[in-house]
Amino acid sequence: MFTRIDHVGIAVEDIDAALETYRERFALGPVHREQVAEQGVDAALLDVGENHVELIAPLGPETTVARFLATRGSGLHHVAYQVSDIDAELDRLRAAGMRLIDEQPRTGIRGSRVAFVHPKSTGGVLTEIVEPAGGHA
Amino acid sequence: MFTRIDHVGIAVEDIDAALETYRERFALGPVHREQVAEQGVDAALLDVGENHVELIAPLGPETTVARFLATRGSGLHHVAYQVSDIDAELDRLRAAGMRLIDEQPRTGIRGSRVAFVHPKSTGGVLTEIVEPAGGHA
Repeated sequence: MFTRIDHVGIAVEDIDAALETYRERFALGPVHREQVAEQGVDAALLDVGENHVELIAPLGPETTVARFLATRGSGLHHVAYQVSDIDAELDRLRAAGMRLIDEQPRTGIRGSRVAFVHPKSTGGVLTEIVEPAGGHA
Repeated sequence: MFTRIDHVGIAVEDIDAALETYRERFALGPVHREQVAEQGVDAALLDVGENHVELIAPLGPETTVARFLATRGSGLHHVAYQVSDIDAELDRLRAAGMRLIDEQPRTGIRGSRVAFVHPKSTGGVLTEIVEPAGGHA
């Protein structure tokens, strides 16, 4: 069961410029910054109430986010739903016939456990499920 | 001030097929369905905790969502942030130099007041602000 939208992931070319835009124009400041090597991104989390915006910039030209930017330009990249038990949720999605990018959870930003569902199963939407680390909404 | 992510807007070709996918595979059912003529869309809202997924399908071939689908295919279309006072928020965004699609709020889904910010001001993200109608989160 999805308990809330955890975050929207937004692909950007220049994360510092994007952070300035979000701070100056939307009054949203970063609460966390991290290089997530496994996903090939430099990432920043901004709180929006109990939800987040995740700005992601590629760590190199061969990353999936670099290819996304080359093809589509900066913009909405994925949506992430929060779950309380990612193992059970992956079992449920697998049983429902979803094509999973991650058969097992991997480590996401800020110690969360995450898995991606393939856009081919969701009408073109790259969809992530997130079990936050203890202590984080 | 943005109090939460109100919804993510997802453009789809066939809203009934999308509703079935979201119900069967994500266990998310519709709580509201409406044709929003002003935006040229057939729309459905699905609750995800206090947030929503808004599925939108074009009412005709000349609508902006039909053009989006023709260019990019189905997928993430916009993100909407909730605000408590949309008039004050529009003033603030205007003063911050944002390019607004809607200089004044218009009526959105389920009696909300909404306005769109141009993607050119937000790094390519079509961004909506939403003041919900009384009684709706």
